[in-house]
Amino acid sequence: MISIKITNAYILTMNESFDIIENGCLCIENNIITYIGDESAVSHLEAHTVIDAQGNLIMPGLINGHTHAAMSIYKGMADDMPLKEWLEHHIFPTESEFCTKENVEIGARLGIMEMIMSGTTCFADMYYFTPTIAEICKEMNMRALLGQAILDFKAPDFDTPTQAIETTKQLIHEYSNNSLVQIIPAPHSPYTCSEEVLRACRQLANDCDVPLHIHVSETIAEYNTSLASHNLTPVQYLHSLGMFDGKTIAAHCVYISDEDRQIMAQQKVHVVNNPQSNMKLVSGISPVPLLLQADIPVCLGTDSSVSNNSLDMFQEMKVAALIHKLNQSDAAVLPAQDIVHMCTRGAAKVLGIDHIVGSLEVGKQADIILVNINQPHLVPLYSIYSHIVYAMQGHDVDTVIINGTIVYLQKQFQLVDPIETMIDAQIIANAIMQRKTEREQQ
Amino acid sequence: MISIKITNAYILTMNESFDIIENGCLCIENNIITYIGDESAVSHLEAHTVIDAQGNLIMPGLINGHTHAAMSIYKGMADDMPLKEWLEHHIFPTESEFCTKENVEIGARLGIMEMIMSGTTCFADMYYFTPTIAEICKEMNMRALLGQAILDFKAPDFDTPTQAIETTKQLIHEYSNNSLVQIIPAPHSPYTCSEEVLRACRQLANDCDVPLHIHVSETIAEYNTSLASHNLTPVQYLHSLGMFDGKTIAAHCVYISDEDRQIMAQQKVHVVNNPQSNMKLVSGISPVPLLLQADIPVCLGTDSSVSNNSLDMFQEMKVAALIHKLNQSDAAVLPAQDIVHMCTRGAAKVLGIDHIVGSLEVGKQADIILVNINQPHLVPLYSIYSHIVYAMQGHDVDTVIINGTIVYLQKQFQLVDPIETMIDAQIIANAIMQRKTEREQQ
Repeated sequence: MISIKITNAYILTMNESFDIIENGCLCIENNIITYIGDESAVSHLEAHTVIDAQGNLIMPGLINGHTHAAMSIYKGMADDMPLKEWLEHHIFPTESEFCTKENVEIGARLGIMEMIMSGTTCFADMYYFTPTIAEICKEMNMRALLGQAILDFKAPDFDTPTQAIETTKQLIHEYSNNSLVQIIPAPHSPYTCSEEVLRACRQLANDCDVPLHIHVSETIAEYNTSLASHNLTPVQYLHSLGMFDGKTIAAHCVYISDEDRQIMAQQKVHVVNNPQSNMKLVSGISPVPLLLQADIPVCLGTDSSVSNNSLDMFQEMKVAALIHKLNQSDAAVLPAQDIVHMCTRGAAKVLGIDHIVGSLEVGKQADIILVNINQPHLVPLYSIYSHIVYAMQGHDVDTVIINGTIVYLQKQFQLVDPIETMIDAQIIANAIMQRKTEREQQ
Repeated sequence: MISIKITNAYILTMNESFDIIENGCLCIENNIITYIGDESAVSHLEAHTVIDAQGNLIMPGLINGHTHAAMSIYKGMADDMPLKEWLEHHIFPTESEFCTKENVEIGARLGIMEMIMSGTTCFADMYYFTPTIAEICKEMNMRALLGQAILDFKAPDFDTPTQAIETTKQLIHEYSNNSLVQIIPAPHSPYTCSEEVLRACRQLANDCDVPLHIHVSETIAEYNTSLASHNLTPVQYLHSLGMFDGKTIAAHCVYISDEDRQIMAQQKVHVVNNPQSNMKLVSGISPVPLLLQADIPVCLGTDSSVSNNSLDMFQEMKVAALIHKLNQSDAAVLPAQDIVHMCTRGAAKVLGIDHIVGSLEVGKQADIILVNINQPHLVPLYSIYSHIVYAMQGHDVDTVIINGTIVYLQKQFQLVDPIETMIDAQIIANAIMQRKTEREQQ
């Protein structure tokens, strides 16, 4: 008996030939996709669970390439203000007091719920208290590449970068055989980490054969400061330290010179574009079409709930398509199919996991979403790619399967109860608002 | 006995002092809001329908300031291509064959369903076969300002602009006492209407004391052609004809010079910004913050489902906030509260109906939406405005009341069955795709 059989499915495979199978069947045994095709060939197979997907699109789960999931507890706390005020008067003071292991647990659970219910089955994170987030991923059966944030100064979880790096090393080994969670080093950025810390992170990643995750050239201020300090752009500076001599996931990359782009292509740097965050914080527009032309793998990310304020990848796909068209003055730039690729198979490549997920193919692990396309805003159907990018929203997702396990079925969480987490999150928010009032009264 | 009592409500009034009432009560008698406040004062009143709004936000229904609802049947038909190819090879040939009264009926029903389920309770439309669309609005109890499209050349519904203007005059009178639908003239644009047609439309609007709805300065090509032909910008040209001597709803206004802006402020021109359409078709970015600074009323619109491809105003609000911040290099531009205003009370002003809708106030007509805010992506709550603009999506809408009638309750349409319309729309789409194949084979 197989585990799951999905019948009557409109299957978007996102395989290399972009096959679409109408009225098909998909079988899962344990965590692996074992069949995709006509149902008649497998009609004799019995399954533990049969899902009739009539009226639904079946596609690979979306991949969020850059976020800070636990910051979901701060969502909507501080908006519509310049970056400096936002960071110095709101984010930093609040995090310094409220970024505790207990709150990270609640924030991560909240963020992962939001991701699952909007069709994300894997995310690359950068934050503190990584072991806590890893536990939540295991509890919720969420796939993740968890970057342990490492900075020069005292962080919420470690007093020194040396401690952080040492612990990260242990964590990488501890999780090396986990089928869902991978821990990786995440030196925060070239401007918050010393040369020594950056080099130590690179060494650690290479020793363990994992990528590292880092913020790169997010703002013009960072770019100009790097030029002033090092006479090098952020990309050139990192390159000069050998930071790209190994697998690298570079988030943002908004300010990228032509020479930077050549370096990134040569060094096979992987990029995560976060268009909504970059717009909301007025960081700028990453030259994504040029990066893709240079064969640099690029995927999309939401960034955190504080700078977005949503983890819905459908929204991110649409805004990415629109802003890059506008920025290049070319409506043909980044057509819908390319955008979907950037959040499925292409994103898996960016994260270095395209051999196991990112498309619906026999032998791959089963990260699958069912999306209800039998709704007024998704009818009629001319092009499924157009609908995914321009008309769908997270809430159209009906069912989510991660690594062969149904985690969300007909809009209901199967492994967690959201109510308790939502209550806990509001209690934290109330405390944050009270402290803010107290600070303002001082 | 009153009609509807909504209890346990988090009420965002959008009145002049932006009052928010927590755990309040709202009463409706027939189509009018008769009470907003503490429940204890009206606990003695019995209601025909009581809605327990626990966990929901109650706010004014959103207003879509510019769309072509019936084009919903073309949604996703032609994307990711330059405007000229899009119009000449896809939209025009398809419309010339498929824009029939029967198809407009299906398209309008489909588009209005999408609007209602995503919290829109009123829209300003511009299209053909206005009487048909008006009938659908009455059937679905949707509020609308329906602009009868008028052009120099043969249109799907009229052979000549003279016929169109004459019929529009009759329609305006026919609907002058309708509580939901108002018909207005909609000369398509300064470049598709002769001076005579434009002037006749202005005269008609003024004679009937209604606004006119027109596309203005949407693309740089239009702007430059106007300069070349008239030695005037589109705004200056329309002004020179006296087109702003009366109530005007000007859609797009992407290319607006400083002098244009002064004219628009003096002449009290009202503007509809359509950021997603303008991005997708690479038209550009309207200088909305500058228009608002000049005291020009501006609201948001989705434009049609072919150039967006969604009628969800929540999405439009977020993208508007993001693109105008980025364009002005100022994260403080258009804060969330201003954006919500632009789609409620501010939009009602743009459409000239702010005396009857746009806010929740005693005496106003009851256009109200209930939004489920007890969901992971909307928890915790710091600022309701931030959540509405940056975190909410159309599908969070639970219940919609228009003019005192519940048209959508707990995500179910009350007056129409969406299934039949969705089937009809797909049949049209299949015919369109078949004709396209035939054309390509010729």
